Amino acid sequence: LDKIAESSLLYDFYGQLLTRRQREVMRLYHEENYSLSEIADEFSVSRQSVHDTLKNAENALKGYEEKMGLLSRMEAEQKAVGKIKKQIERILEENRGNDRLAEGLKEIETILRSLG
Amino acid sequence: LDKIAESSLLYDFYGQLLTRRQREVMRLYHEENYSLSEIADEFSVSRQSVHDTLKNAENALKGYEEKMGLLSRMEAEQKAVGKIKKQIERILEENRGNDRLAEGLKEIETILRSLG
Repeated sequence: LDKIAESSLLYDFYGQLLTRRQREVMRLYHEENYSLSEIADEFSVSRQSVHDTLKNAENALKGYEEKMGLLSRMEAEQKAVGKIKKQIERILEENRGNDRLAEGLKEIETILRSLG
Repeated sequence: LDKIAESSLLYDFYGQLLTRRQREVMRLYHEENYSLSEIADEFSVSRQSVHDTLKNAENALKGYEEKMGLLSRMEAEQKAVGKIKKQIERILEENRGNDRLAEGLKEIETILRSLG
């Protein structure tokens, strides 16, 4: 995962644990691409204060991940789901023509997708 | 889920977000079956204070679940995994004698178990 993707996933997982102000500043900076100065104007605070809010929020997100490890758990899950998909592909290839089997395996794939 | 199982799962998911004191009190009360008075003695605080610590910890855990919903996400995942297992059973029954297929499906079941 690159740094931006990781940071965005951390926000998805733990953003609800941040303060409303931290969430708002992160959203403006990362999603709306506001500059620090624009955010500072928006909230009538100093640019330095916005910078600190962002840093604190990022540190808080990293702290939550260290404690709860949801991101690494998700990565492990995705690896497992990937392995199952490969296994399904292999079985499909080895049982061409067995339509009923193919249908059953497709259903498994559909359920897997709901696992995210 | 009954109340005790739910409370124990909430602790598993979010316990790391509690204070060390909250965790310790919860552990003594729920795992070691200490009484409130015994815990009060242990920490040289009042029984009422232990009671408050427990209540606060439980409320914090519920608050985390309201914000993050890991418990209900896990329940949805377990439902999905259950459906996949049923589908595998059905496919196995319909393809008795296909040992290579059975082997592939068993591998999928093994990977599923690692998903918890």
